[in-house]
Amino acid sequence: MLHIIGHKNPDTDTICSALVYADFLNQKGTEAKAYALGPLNKETKFVFEKFGEKDPEHIKELPKGTEIILLDHNEEGQSIDNIKDLDIVEIIDHHKVKIETDKPISIYIEPLGSSCSIIAKKYFETRTELSKVNASLLIAGIISDTLFFRSPTTTQIDKDLVEKLNEIARIEDLEKFSLEMFNAKSDLGNMPVEEIIKLDYKIFEFAGNKYGIGVMETTNKDYGLNRKDEITAKLKEIKTKDELKAVFFSIVDILNEASYTLTSGDEETEMFTKIFGAVEKEGALFVDKLVSRKKQVVPRFQEYIK
Amino acid sequence: MLHIIGHKNPDTDTICSALVYADFLNQKGTEAKAYALGPLNKETKFVFEKFGEKDPEHIKELPKGTEIILLDHNEEGQSIDNIKDLDIVEIIDHHKVKIETDKPISIYIEPLGSSCSIIAKKYFETRTELSKVNASLLIAGIISDTLFFRSPTTTQIDKDLVEKLNEIARIEDLEKFSLEMFNAKSDLGNMPVEEIIKLDYKIFEFAGNKYGIGVMETTNKDYGLNRKDEITAKLKEIKTKDELKAVFFSIVDILNEASYTLTSGDEETEMFTKIFGAVEKEGALFVDKLVSRKKQVVPRFQEYIK
Repeated sequence: MLHIIGHKNPDTDTICSALVYADFLNQKGTEAKAYALGPLNKETKFVFEKFGEKDPEHIKELPKGTEIILLDHNEEGQSIDNIKDLDIVEIIDHHKVKIETDKPISIYIEPLGSSCSIIAKKYFETRTELSKVNASLLIAGIISDTLFFRSPTTTQIDKDLVEKLNEIARIEDLEKFSLEMFNAKSDLGNMPVEEIIKLDYKIFEFAGNKYGIGVMETTNKDYGLNRKDEITAKLKEIKTKDELKAVFFSIVDILNEASYTLTSGDEETEMFTKIFGAVEKEGALFVDKLVSRKKQVVPRFQEYIK
Repeated sequence: MLHIIGHKNPDTDTICSALVYADFLNQKGTEAKAYALGPLNKETKFVFEKFGEKDPEHIKELPKGTEIILLDHNEEGQSIDNIKDLDIVEIIDHHKVKIETDKPISIYIEPLGSSCSIIAKKYFETRTELSKVNASLLIAGIISDTLFFRSPTTTQIDKDLVEKLNEIARIEDLEKFSLEMFNAKSDLGNMPVEEIIKLDYKIFEFAGNKYGIGVMETTNKDYGLNRKDEITAKLKEIKTKDELKAVFFSIVDILNEASYTLTSGDEETEMFTKIFGAVEKEGALFVDKLVSRKKQVVPRFQEYIK
């Protein structure tokens, strides 16, 4: 039995790709089950309710020696807590990699807009049966990770796959569906500020130091900007508590394709301004067209720091 | 234009997989060309003569910024000299990995017996046209790397692929063909001793130190054992010259599935004996059933050293 796990602070792409890949493997005769490393976000909940999908089992650890597949991530810091005790047999991802293994394992990385795109390709290439629900989940993952094709991570392959998937899913108005998804994600209610920061939060290691980078993708940037003082205070707290070099939190205005970043201190603000040519706007670091942590933020940090 | 390169000291698998993958990409509309990082060994020459294939262009470097695909290797030390100046866009391999990238790239690793198996899978999965010559080259690569299914790296998938490939290649007697390949490889003539050591030689990094491990796969172990004093002297020389922690050279008796190892010094001999339970035989360190550097030697070194 293979255990498929996505990354911490799961998003729609990590959850949907894990669930549908479990179906793929089961169809191929390999018993597999998908898990979540924490509660679903509001966007994923909206998608699951719409298509009648069930929340996967939540776990924090797995028994020593368990065979796992890492989906939508490959760096240890973004994975299950006791990863060092587990046996990674496969990695499927669409991010930059930092991998070292003792023996050959299966690794499939493709620079597409989402992990759901990779799983969709596998179905079509191997002519495997894909249910209406699973096709819908894959579309949701692609739309979520590419911000409905607005992100520079988007490829023509992602667009073609959504078209092909929708021959099965038959979602009537994809534009409207994407707005419903993004609005669901934007509705934070009275969520505690640390939860907002950790909505989509990852730890990266650059030149031996650890950096926390959180992202909130929203159709209403004011949900974030209205609470900027609280958020900044919490970023400083997280920096100290988790012994990080710096923490950044970007509010991405999906529809206008721009971002507003808050930082854990003055030095970080200076650094971010320098790297991205940010200007102050509404009390945050505004950068037009900066929407992708993976394709824009992390590579430029990495280049600057090394 | 993509440039496909295999590893240094090219073997049949690295050359054949690179050449046939170039054809695959060209059929898919992506211009690609395969290169060799040095002269072909006698086994590969035999295969090329038999099937009428041409020796690819040999290179040592490529112009700065050239887009390359690494085939059959992923570690920098085994690759083209100026790899740091080049743009790796894809990696296809079947070895353990040590990869770090700044951006997402295509990576396809599968723990099969050869890189040719991975390329063959790609053809069959995507129903791409495969010529008789290319099917023959892929069979040769699989037979070479798995020692015609004797190596513990062999999987059922490799065997199935050879069967399927041979529906196209129509090689009459595969057993006979494999013996001809191995005999061609065993015929060293009056090859200088350093060339013998470097026939199939790779540098590995364990816990920050570099180790050279050469392998000679042969149907006649005496070609190597008759020159053991010369070889041992040269191993010591290479160790000093290349600033290595240790150098090992294993003569693998393909048909009897055993190996005879020579080392660069007493400490290395003690270490090798301890790790593999070797016994002295014909002046070398004999280990029964030890035939695979990838699946047996390197993982056990890595475990011992870390």
